[in-house]
Amino acid sequence: MLIVMQPNASEEKIQKVISFIKEQGFDAHVSKGENQTVIGAVGKKVIDKRNIELLDGVKEVLRISSPYKLVSRTFKPDDTIIDVNGVKFGGGYVGMIAGPCTVESYEQMDETAKLLSSYGVKVIRGGAFKPRTSPYAFQGLGEEGLKILREVADKYNMLVTSEVMEVNQIPLFLKYVDILQVGARNMQNFNLLKALGEVRKPVLLKRGLSATIEEWLMSAEYIMAGGNREVILCERGIRTFEHITRNTLDISAIPVVQKISHLPVVVDPSHATGLRDKVAPMSKASVAAGADGLIIEVHHSPETAVCDGAQSLYPEQFKELFEDLKALAVVVKKQFN
Amino acid sequence: MLIVMQPNASEEKIQKVISFIKEQGFDAHVSKGENQTVIGAVGKKVIDKRNIELLDGVKEVLRISSPYKLVSRTFKPDDTIIDVNGVKFGGGYVGMIAGPCTVESYEQMDETAKLLSSYGVKVIRGGAFKPRTSPYAFQGLGEEGLKILREVADKYNMLVTSEVMEVNQIPLFLKYVDILQVGARNMQNFNLLKALGEVRKPVLLKRGLSATIEEWLMSAEYIMAGGNREVILCERGIRTFEHITRNTLDISAIPVVQKISHLPVVVDPSHATGLRDKVAPMSKASVAAGADGLIIEVHHSPETAVCDGAQSLYPEQFKELFEDLKALAVVVKKQFN
Amino acid sequence: MLIVMQPNASEEKIQKVISFIKEQGFDAHVSKGENQTVIGAVGKKVIDKRNIELLDGVKEVLRISSPYKLVSRTFKPDDTIIDVNGVKFGGGYVGMIAGPCTVESYEQMDETAKLLSSYGVKVIRGGAFKPRTSPYAFQGLGEEGLKILREVADKYNMLVTSEVMEVNQIPLFLKYVDILQVGARNMQNFNLLKALGEVRKPVLLKRGLSATIEEWLMSAEYIMAGGNREVILCERGIRTFEHITRNTLDISAIPVVQKISHLPVVVDPSHATGLRDKVAPMSKASVAAGADGLIIEVHHSPETAVCDGAQSLYPEQFKELFEDLKALAVVVKKQFN
Amino acid sequence: MLIVMQPNASEEKIQKVISFIKEQGFDAHVSKGENQTVIGAVGKKVIDKRNIELLDGVKEVLRISSPYKLVSRTFKPDDTIIDVNGVKFGGGYVGMIAGPCTVESYEQMDETAKLLSSYGVKVIRGGAFKPRTSPYAFQGLGEEGLKILREVADKYNMLVTSEVMEVNQIPLFLKYVDILQVGARNMQNFNLLKALGEVRKPVLLKRGLSATIEEWLMSAEYIMAGGNREVILCERGIRTFEHITRNTLDISAIPVVQKISHLPVVVDPSHATGLRDKVAPMSKASVAAGADGLIIEVHHSPETAVCDGAQSLYPEQFKELFEDLKALAVVVKKQFN
Repeated sequence: MLIVMQPNASEEKIQKVISFIKEQGFDAHVSKGENQTVIGAVGKKVIDKRNIELLDGVKEVLRISSPYKLVSRTFKPDDTIIDVNGVKFGGGYVGMIAGPCTVESYEQMDETAKLLSSYGVKVIRGGAFKPRTSPYAFQGLGEEGLKILREVADKYNMLVTSEVMEVNQIPLFLKYVDILQVGARNMQNFNLLKALGEVRKPVLLKRGLSATIEEWLMSAEYIMAGGNREVILCERGIRTFEHITRNTLDISAIPVVQKISHLPVVVDPSHATGLRDKVAPMSKASVAAGADGLIIEVHHSPETAVCDGAQSLYPEQFKELFEDLKALAVVVKKQFN
Repeated sequence: MLIVMQPNASEEKIQKVISFIKEQGFDAHVSKGENQTVIGAVGKKVIDKRNIELLDGVKEVLRISSPYKLVSRTFKPDDTIIDVNGVKFGGGYVGMIAGPCTVESYEQMDETAKLLSSYGVKVIRGGAFKPRTSPYAFQGLGEEGLKILREVADKYNMLVTSEVMEVNQIPLFLKYVDILQVGARNMQNFNLLKALGEVRKPVLLKRGLSATIEEWLMSAEYIMAGGNREVILCERGIRTFEHITRNTLDISAIPVVQKISHLPVVVDPSHATGLRDKVAPMSKASVAAGADGLIIEVHHSPETAVCDGAQSLYPEQFKELFEDLKALAVVVKKQFN
Repeated sequence: MLIVMQPNASEEKIQKVISFIKEQGFDAHVSKGENQTVIGAVGKKVIDKRNIELLDGVKEVLRISSPYKLVSRTFKPDDTIIDVNGVKFGGGYVGMIAGPCTVESYEQMDETAKLLSSYGVKVIRGGAFKPRTSPYAFQGLGEEGLKILREVADKYNMLVTSEVMEVNQIPLFLKYVDILQVGARNMQNFNLLKALGEVRKPVLLKRGLSATIEEWLMSAEYIMAGGNREVILCERGIRTFEHITRNTLDISAIPVVQKISHLPVVVDPSHATGLRDKVAPMSKASVAAGADGLIIEVHHSPETAVCDGAQSLYPEQFKELFEDLKALAVVVKKQFN
Repeated sequence: MLIVMQPNASEEKIQKVISFIKEQGFDAHVSKGENQTVIGAVGKKVIDKRNIELLDGVKEVLRISSPYKLVSRTFKPDDTIIDVNGVKFGGGYVGMIAGPCTVESYEQMDETAKLLSSYGVKVIRGGAFKPRTSPYAFQGLGEEGLKILREVADKYNMLVTSEVMEVNQIPLFLKYVDILQVGARNMQNFNLLKALGEVRKPVLLKRGLSATIEEWLMSAEYIMAGGNREVILCERGIRTFEHITRNTLDISAIPVVQKISHLPVVVDPSHATGLRDKVAPMSKASVAAGADGLIIEVHHSPETAVCDGAQSLYPEQFKELFEDLKALAVVVKKQFN
């Protein structure tokens, strides 16, 4: 922490600040300029910098160390490759996850899985417990949905990801899914994050609707601090003033995160835009920008989908898109697996 | 729902749209203008309007009914007055809640409660379970904190509010607190909201950092749909591009919500601004705009507070502010209790 | 500027940074901690800090001096009171400006001015040149409108404010108006700001729709740097994700600006909210938060107004509101004039 | 316009609304549902819908026609290809514009133009009049800068684009440049837009920092309404809560605009991100998403650039990027020219 004193702050005020930070357990390094003094506070403690800002004679307090540790490239310089039973995310590998918004029935999932696996998709998605804005909307099939996911995945030799909404659902998810997904609304459900730190399966952590990249990484830190090192970050659009698309997909988050952190970043273009015809261009943009994976909504019959049919691709559309994405990946020196 | 067809859409396309909405269980009322047809879809079902927007020849689909029911003034025209053991929020009564960010010790809370009750405050706040952005920050005293709160409240004849973070903490909270607070990060933790619908104690529901007013009201609807009619809404600042204050306190949310809903709206100026010297002006602004209550952070010794000391008022500051607020309330024809 | 080197940056890299900043005309003050070095760059030059951030071994560059000078309290500690022919803004005085969105006719303005002056309003507003989002909307009466404003103002012994949109309109405005208004869309029209720096009449500078407080103050700095010291800042709502009100009125900007700057801050609640029934609560909130003035849209017949009738108060509504505002001002130790 | 009456609004209120809209020059089409009436107002006039919303018994007023005409695909279904002396933007052609932020000297521009033209770039950019946030920063070389641009462009057989800031600069620009650029801060400088409508050279219109896509298109409408049909839209990042990048590049704006409008959309990745190492991934993302062009900052010696050196590419970096972009364009069935 650097404490910038006001120009011409009195020696007495400077000494009081030094005493204060020493009391808090920091060392003080004083650097006097012609008319401005800067005090470096060195130490391991976490302190609310506003407590110092309110001291007499202090102009500003600047934090110089990052709040995250385990997620940063300083801690681990090389790309983390999350390898889920042979399907890789990160380090040059781009993973593809596809499937419907919601598990509706065995028939639906069987049909979808058959098609997707024939296109080369190795991870299937589908919601069993659904976070819905309205209490009057369909809330998901629950455990029945997870069972269906597991069954069709096993039948077509695929992996499963699904959203876990609460601490006490975790045991159920461990039984059925390969990647546990944390939704945008739960990105700062700290109890859930802590509990997922105890798990030994990969977690796909969506960015909150209005979460800064730093907050998102701090949530990943929660999981890693608990001992679970397999976190896949997922950009899914942020809330801005522009409402013509549901959210604004922050594609620049891909290179930004990849510079700061060693963790892989995947993109969900379906929820970000909310409209089928925007999914293809945004998927292509994501891969071109260096994304380590995609999670795309596909439904075998979007018109009759229970939810989010409007943003789900037709299987044929997805197939064609996947081919384009593979070609784009080559240009940016990556490969789908 | 109103379905606006594209200018000069063919009769065939119009008929297809009509068939589609009838299949979905709606009645169709067709209104043909010179060159534009509008179809009204009347019915009780919830449907994703994007499914219709993607039909051929459709220009736009406009929702005309509000998604919330129980929270709206259409359902209940008169102000709801939440009466917590004699302390009233709404309908002309302004409630005052004050206390520290976090329960640190019995001595701290005893000192604070003694002072606050002497100023006329009847509800004390204090966190026992703390949602913290960093896994390395202090996470609260837990049940011990709730016990302390209850003890000092009983000693000084006050009521207690504290934040509940998870479904399985609810029984604990019912034992110790009078108002259960839901934090901004949990505003769309739907499982928690549903569980609080079963409770028969008032819930103070904070607005999410980037929640629209409609989403906020939908979260209140979750609680009310469960049977709990005692919801106090709490505006606490929204995230915008402006970072000079921690968040932007949306004071206009007060009259906006009061027009749409019968529920009381209180304001938390401490978390919104994050700085002590902004708390007084924003508290005054809130009361002048018609707020039904305030929740303000006060600490008997802010410099040594474990958290958020920088935004906590000194007891003397609070006392003076409270007097000003009472005078302002009179001008807008309300009264503190 | 403080240059924070990466932990364990080599001596060579540190020396290269020092050489670089010296070449740029700065002095270097080096402060070495256990494992982190901080270099203070002291000097008067303006430099893009990103140029240093891109040097090898640099972790972060922190600016410690404010970019504005003349607008800051460091430059002038006491409140600036703008006195426009006896009507004061700032330093305990609250100024009231009222009138219609647009000058429509002599009769309209005469009627409005008669009513407003009878309520004690001393400054009338009205648009003559209108910035309209659509090229097909009414664009204002032009010079004719300014003439009308001047005539009725003189008749009722009032002052005039109106929006100037372009450099070459300034001579015209100097002829007719007492306060030159700069609209939100022109807050960073730097040519206009420079030209207004040459003027010797007060300028009312609206905050841009997405301008940070720092950018807003920098725009005021442009005017003051030209020699015109009479700038009144005007908060009028910022663009956020919330669209239920037209914009989000940032009331916290009042105390924030008043701490940093000596200039008066007035509020425009009409444009911020866009709806008549929100104008009264937001006006009250502004005064309670310490605003130095208000600018409110009033129309003698809002239903027939050419523009913004929906956000214009009826004269009777305004009269009643003005009385409440005077009572609120007393509580916060200010007075209308 | 559709006027949705409140459930069970009285016949009297319905009739009053009908009378009102007829007085305003609209035809009324009434559609009565079981308990809700909807009134369609048909006509060519522009009216502020809030005037109707404030009538008794009205629940909501919904606009059903788009405010823009000439820019929309309804008006012109096919892609507009802007052909500037053989360099094409739109309709499958991707145009590349490159050059420094600011014209600093003849030598600088000659060096840059030589390199860029050798890489195949056909349009050079460079600022002569600079909009700067601080009045104390370098404001550009003015006409001298435009002359230099023209000279080097002619020498290397290139075209020129530069930013025009004010109406009275237009004649100067017509003398020297091929494409007139309107900066983000001037997107709603309506006087400038009107004046550019009179011009017969292409205009590159940047999106305002917080402009919705609709407002951006309305600004293009201003230019087209004046008779100038050659508008190139330019996405350059929007202001959001996320400040780790300077702005958030809204890549989804590309497919959104291309669906609504026939005009070409180019992207400026340099200003959006503000950092050199983010320019390549965002350029690639833009082309993959279907952009019709790019405008990229390149400086022959970024460390010594007068402005924005930190976001300028080294010539070698640009050369390599350009090759990648050409390969990506092929995948999305487009070509650079």
